[in-house]
Amino acid sequence: MYRFRHLADIVSWDRNAMMPPKGNAARAAAAAELATLIHGLATEPCLAALLEAAEGEPLDDLERANLREMRRAWREANALPESLVQRRTLVCAACEHAWRGQRAANDWPGFLANFRDVVNVAREEARLLAESGGLSRYDALMDRYEPGMRTTDVDALFGELKRSLPELVRRVAGVQREQRVLVPRGPFPVAAQKALGLEVMEVLGFDFGAGRLDESAHPFSGGVPEDVRLTTRYADGDFVQSLMGVVHETGHARYEQNLPREWLGQPLGQARSYGIHESMSLSFEMQLARSPAFVALIAPRIAAHFGADPAFAHENLAKLLTRVQPGLIRVAADEVTYPLHVILRYEIERPLIEGEIEADDVPALWDEKMAALLGRDTRGNYRDGCLQDVHWSDGAFGYFPSYTLGAMYAAQWFAAMRRAIPALDARIAEGDLAPVFDWMHANVWSQASRWETPELVVRASSEALNPAYFLGHLEQRYLGAG
Amino acid sequence: MYRFRHLADIVSWDRNAMMPPKGNAARAAAAAELATLIHGLATEPCLAALLEAAEGEPLDDLERANLREMRRAWREANALPESLVQRRTLVCAACEHAWRGQRAANDWPGFLANFRDVVNVAREEARLLAESGGLSRYDALMDRYEPGMRTTDVDALFGELKRSLPELVRRVAGVQREQRVLVPRGPFPVAAQKALGLEVMEVLGFDFGAGRLDESAHPFSGGVPEDVRLTTRYADGDFVQSLMGVVHETGHARYEQNLPREWLGQPLGQARSYGIHESMSLSFEMQLARSPAFVALIAPRIAAHFGADPAFAHENLAKLLTRVQPGLIRVAADEVTYPLHVILRYEIERPLIEGEIEADDVPALWDEKMAALLGRDTRGNYRDGCLQDVHWSDGAFGYFPSYTLGAMYAAQWFAAMRRAIPALDARIAEGDLAPVFDWMHANVWSQASRWETPELVVRASSEALNPAYFLGHLEQRYLGAG
Repeated sequence: MYRFRHLADIVSWDRNAMMPPKGNAARAAAAAELATLIHGLATEPCLAALLEAAEGEPLDDLERANLREMRRAWREANALPESLVQRRTLVCAACEHAWRGQRAANDWPGFLANFRDVVNVAREEARLLAESGGLSRYDALMDRYEPGMRTTDVDALFGELKRSLPELVRRVAGVQREQRVLVPRGPFPVAAQKALGLEVMEVLGFDFGAGRLDESAHPFSGGVPEDVRLTTRYADGDFVQSLMGVVHETGHARYEQNLPREWLGQPLGQARSYGIHESMSLSFEMQLARSPAFVALIAPRIAAHFGADPAFAHENLAKLLTRVQPGLIRVAADEVTYPLHVILRYEIERPLIEGEIEADDVPALWDEKMAALLGRDTRGNYRDGCLQDVHWSDGAFGYFPSYTLGAMYAAQWFAAMRRAIPALDARIAEGDLAPVFDWMHANVWSQASRWETPELVVRASSEALNPAYFLGHLEQRYLGAG
Repeated sequence: MYRFRHLADIVSWDRNAMMPPKGNAARAAAAAELATLIHGLATEPCLAALLEAAEGEPLDDLERANLREMRRAWREANALPESLVQRRTLVCAACEHAWRGQRAANDWPGFLANFRDVVNVAREEARLLAESGGLSRYDALMDRYEPGMRTTDVDALFGELKRSLPELVRRVAGVQREQRVLVPRGPFPVAAQKALGLEVMEVLGFDFGAGRLDESAHPFSGGVPEDVRLTTRYADGDFVQSLMGVVHETGHARYEQNLPREWLGQPLGQARSYGIHESMSLSFEMQLARSPAFVALIAPRIAAHFGADPAFAHENLAKLLTRVQPGLIRVAADEVTYPLHVILRYEIERPLIEGEIEADDVPALWDEKMAALLGRDTRGNYRDGCLQDVHWSDGAFGYFPSYTLGAMYAAQWFAAMRRAIPALDARIAEGDLAPVFDWMHANVWSQASRWETPELVVRASSEALNPAYFLGHLEQRYLGAG
């Protein structure tokens, strides 16, 4: 299965980064054939008895962790009949495909026609996974991305953020209103942006012998641990987008590149969860790369690629990279307002899956929550409202919390790092990033799926996930407090 | 199987054009797993009875051609036990891997140690395929690349060439000694070479919506009919190599891109053979692109990319692209001497597989034949002698004849075209290539595997493969005769 997934991952990267449009139909058929094969292997009838027998054997800790992960994957694969998996694929592919045009056309009624089917199939999926795992329906979906994470945990964590963030955003706006920030003059030639991105990947320790950087419409990190494929996108009027895309994806990449080689091929050797993965990309992008120390380190390199500009002074760049502005679009949001976008989606998709609201109710709820959380009006603007993300059209309910869990983990990692490593920021500013990478290697990368997430977090940072670190980080960075 | 082969073909392209070095071990394991899966499907026990039953059904011509191709593939797959396929993979991978260093080190004894194993496994393969197909051993290997082609045919065809070519080479040398040819002054920036290559692909009708051009150490054409992946290589001192690489691979690509869409996924829809495939690449590279008419068409484009140079005058370029010089290296050979390189290899690998000579005998035979056919001395120079090609290290015995069969088919196609299309060269010089493409579409591309090769050839050109067309083409182009 590991080997077949290798093929699936490489051709999926190819589809997004390389494939010309007319290759799509044959590729989709080939990828679906492989997915069916892998699902067939995961649900082979003999596995139940083999897993049962393994439970009774004398296993060491690693073997037991491996068995735990095998059982989890096995239970998930076996909870869903082949017919539902196929229906899901068809319904989501149709909705996602139509969504691309409907978003541009601001066509909520058109989207809704397909989206009702997606919600129905996702509810059926949730019901079966919930039965098999003894969970609530939304928890059962979220468990696929964040094993062990439950609505009660998320409610508590997000509750903290929801109480504090709107006020924090207002205070930051007050501070930033007084700031003068120079915006660098473009254009920034794409070739120079590429060269800068590759240089920064080098600084961030990316192993070019085991991965590569390409371009795609939406930046992503794909491939396999032995060969990680990153992408970014370039616009010649804005170098920050491509650069921060590269930094973010390099965070994902180093996690994959540093998973223990001796465990690869086993469930034990996989990255822990989507939230932990996101904690690595956000550690790189938000905690590290937008810190004054790192900005001081790379500001001269930026100037070297694009030419002298007073806006490239590191004090100015640091301000530019931490501007806060409540907006309509999640992927364009700063790190202070981003969690509010996630909370909004969480508060809609959870009751939608649990059957407390219907697909038709989404836009009104969106408008209401957008006004309450971010003070923005999205009425009638579906394009920049509930149609903006691909996730729902694709049936990926339960994924959104991972983004903000990742941001919170990342803040907690850096708090732990700063306690453990004296003068961390001074060392970063000097270009000595080894303490950061060593900490990540010891506490996250090398641990793969050895521990369930709560134990991983306590072992790495000496306490359970605590939103105070994220809030403290924001206050410190944006209000100079604490 | 078609879908799984799609995945195998795309990851194989990726391995050669994209993959970083540390990805190799995991990729090799994944690719081998997929190859085993495909072999398992091809040898499912139920297939014998299904094929048998199909023979008895009332089938139309296309269905019968499809069944013929299915049975051929089935027979080949079933002739070899899984254990032999695996041993072959291991032995050839080891020999090929070591060969890369041994070639550079001119290390024949080191190579020989592995090569004996390759010869043994290839002989075993040949024996089993020969038994199953009722053929001689070498014919059984050649049949995998050129179905239906036999040693007796090749002996007759190559015999003609062997009788005529050495004398022809001498006469051409005499003519060319008197010619003054200007060599364009480099460097030729790689970016300009790329742009020129893409432009020429456009002229040659490549569909960029269904394929792409990249770079690799050795130019090749890969991917799938729905998504063809070409590569070339660039050296900034020589634009001819990259350009002719692009033209050659575009010939392969257009065949794949124009196989009948409605037959794809069925054996009937595959390209006819390696020789016919090579006839397409050589039609593009040798027959078309090195013709005075085509050179006149692209000379101004070449000058536009690299700047004015009297060497870019089309009369001079045409001379430059048709220089003849007996050399040591097959892949660098001109079209007049190239067949002699192939004949040399054929005359060694055939008796080697039949057991008439041993692996140890190869270098002495090589030296003897090189002196006789090309008048060059390779004694002690294994690097540029019998170690120069990857084919033998990889166990690909029986492939070499395809190159020269392709050259002969290509000449026969253009002779047929010139009979059918008035003023063909004038139209080419004006940039009207449609008559060439229409002919290929009607006679080769759209026919895929509908006919066995001899019938395809007669239908396209009104007679069986006849080396007189190739020899006539050489005399006409290089001696101005006929």
